[in-house]
Amino acid sequence: MFEFRVTHVDGSARRGVLTTPHGEVHTPVFMPVGTAGSVKGVTPNQLAATGTEMILANTYHLQLRPGPEAVRDLGGLHRFMGWDGPILTDSGGYQVFSMAPISRITDEGVEFRSHIDGATVQLTPAGATRIQNLLGADVVMAFDECPPLPGARPALETAVERTLRWAAECRAAHQRSDQALFGIVQGGLEVPLRQRCAAALQALGFDGYAVGGLSVGETHEQMVEVLGPTIAALPADQPRYLMGVGMPRDILAAVCLGVDMFDCVLPTRNGRNGFAFTAAGPLKMRNERHKLDEAPLEPGCDCETCARFSRGYIRHLFNAGEMLGPTLTSIHNLRFYQRFMARIRELIAQGQWARMVAEFPILALGEADERGAGDGE
Amino acid sequence: MFEFRVTHVDGSARRGVLTTPHGEVHTPVFMPVGTAGSVKGVTPNQLAATGTEMILANTYHLQLRPGPEAVRDLGGLHRFMGWDGPILTDSGGYQVFSMAPISRITDEGVEFRSHIDGATVQLTPAGATRIQNLLGADVVMAFDECPPLPGARPALETAVERTLRWAAECRAAHQRSDQALFGIVQGGLEVPLRQRCAAALQALGFDGYAVGGLSVGETHEQMVEVLGPTIAALPADQPRYLMGVGMPRDILAAVCLGVDMFDCVLPTRNGRNGFAFTAAGPLKMRNERHKLDEAPLEPGCDCETCARFSRGYIRHLFNAGEMLGPTLTSIHNLRFYQRFMARIRELIAQGQWARMVAEFPILALGEADERGAGDGE
Repeated sequence: MFEFRVTHVDGSARRGVLTTPHGEVHTPVFMPVGTAGSVKGVTPNQLAATGTEMILANTYHLQLRPGPEAVRDLGGLHRFMGWDGPILTDSGGYQVFSMAPISRITDEGVEFRSHIDGATVQLTPAGATRIQNLLGADVVMAFDECPPLPGARPALETAVERTLRWAAECRAAHQRSDQALFGIVQGGLEVPLRQRCAAALQALGFDGYAVGGLSVGETHEQMVEVLGPTIAALPADQPRYLMGVGMPRDILAAVCLGVDMFDCVLPTRNGRNGFAFTAAGPLKMRNERHKLDEAPLEPGCDCETCARFSRGYIRHLFNAGEMLGPTLTSIHNLRFYQRFMARIRELIAQGQWARMVAEFPILALGEADERGAGDGE
Repeated sequence: MFEFRVTHVDGSARRGVLTTPHGEVHTPVFMPVGTAGSVKGVTPNQLAATGTEMILANTYHLQLRPGPEAVRDLGGLHRFMGWDGPILTDSGGYQVFSMAPISRITDEGVEFRSHIDGATVQLTPAGATRIQNLLGADVVMAFDECPPLPGARPALETAVERTLRWAAECRAAHQRSDQALFGIVQGGLEVPLRQRCAAALQALGFDGYAVGGLSVGETHEQMVEVLGPTIAALPADQPRYLMGVGMPRDILAAVCLGVDMFDCVLPTRNGRNGFAFTAAGPLKMRNERHKLDEAPLEPGCDCETCARFSRGYIRHLFNAGEMLGPTLTSIHNLRFYQRFMARIRELIAQGQWARMVAEFPILALGEADERGAGDGE
């Protein structure tokens, strides 16, 4: 029911096919994020039309609202969201540690206050697994402790020990054979700690392995430095997932190191904020200079937005506060990411993925330019 | 280029085909409102899938933002909005008189303050016509004075005199033969005044005739009472358009009196507010009672929303503040209106449109129930 097959290799980069109960996924894959059971601003039809094969939903948000039993009663996450393709749920670990006012962390789990109504909520490894069993995604994640960076070695070690103990508890609690369970490697920027965590998780045995606790404020170079040896410490025949990443150049670097799966809110969050991705670099769509521009967001793009709408119109939509502005820009950004991934997969197959930088000049931009600071606004 | 053909008659009700430079429209037609160049929350593809053939856009809003020259420079309203079908623009009269702080009304026109930036703006008959020529809709409207109801007879008479003088000025200013120009009948609830206005407009000669200044707070019965003799005073071989109407029972009553065209913000405005139209009556989607409901918004509805999503999911979307809630509910409401109009057209053709009330129990609800007060929220 769950299978991963590497079909092409170029250096450490690889192309593959992940088979799930809800269909095949071509890797390296980018998963848009449907935080609360909706990839914000787009319908499942529009999402599928961007080339999206698999999406992510957040256990933390769905646990609090509408609750995992409600999702189950409404037919499980696929039926609930109207998305028939593969879905991955995270474990809630990252959100609990980054969003919620935490009242208590013990070896048993975490107690936090809901960001919605302030209620006290417990999340344990067994609980997070039970919730994900109720939600019914194709891939579920072990509950981990995700410490902030930079982290002192003792705090990172404690987090790794807890993450490993919790991983074993998740393994034991996991009830559904139709859901793959992935372990999560923690260890901050400490390579030996990452490697130890990776080895210990493999001793437990998971269907795939994720790298957590990156893309939390470290530089691109720091991320690459720790990611290389971490990925190398994971089995070659199972999927490797870099959580929460990211910008195009982070993704390309991670693909080169052998990562197969990615998720990030950037295409939709930036889309809602009027920030359009293009191969040449970002566009800020509220900018006056787009007012009379008849060009599409990205000439040559085959998305629904670029096929029909001008920059001038999209700029007007943001200016007038029309919902369609975020929707159209999110559709384009999602398609941009999926075209980016498709080209990565093609070039791996041809052993030529280094051509990416020439085709996507955005990869060569500095971080400030990448985020649109150069757009004169 | 512009033609109206009545194909079936049943009492005063009639079915017909309106031919425009951007295609045919089957009447009686309901036009969704794209105030600022976007039918809020839905893409043109989604809009077309609801069965929508023709839409309305507001001169007032587009004049202020992005400005008529910008729309023209971006290829005209059809290209700007990405809508290839017929479009009608109102003249701005209604908005100026209902939304803007007016500083001065003279026989030459109106001076008002922009609701966006407070700037002083002039709108004259020739100006409103010029703006609509620049926007490029298939049907454009004469600039009228739309007085509030209830109105004293002298104020209504003054408004009718101005509306007639302005109609002549619009007629003279109109530059494009590919755009039909409609006159607007005013006169408040005073039937003789309405009839006099209708006759005088016909003496000027327009491509179609609209009834303005209704659906502004009068009861359903008052509207019907004044509408009947007003419509009877208009030519049978030209389209008749009741502006800003409305609720399903207002539309049905007006069709029975011989109206061919309607526009209203209700399907999208109510959709954004979580209010779903069904034949049986309204649903308030934020209501707790929908939480675990697996049924679609309206069983038997063939819209994209009902094909895929449950009431429980849509209730969750509104509860979580997800954009998709307004979008999905607007899509359903638009399809509800278009199915309602399609059934009206079918039943006119069969001489049986009185069956509408049995098929749409919402038509028999009181005004409070119609607006959802009975939904227990």
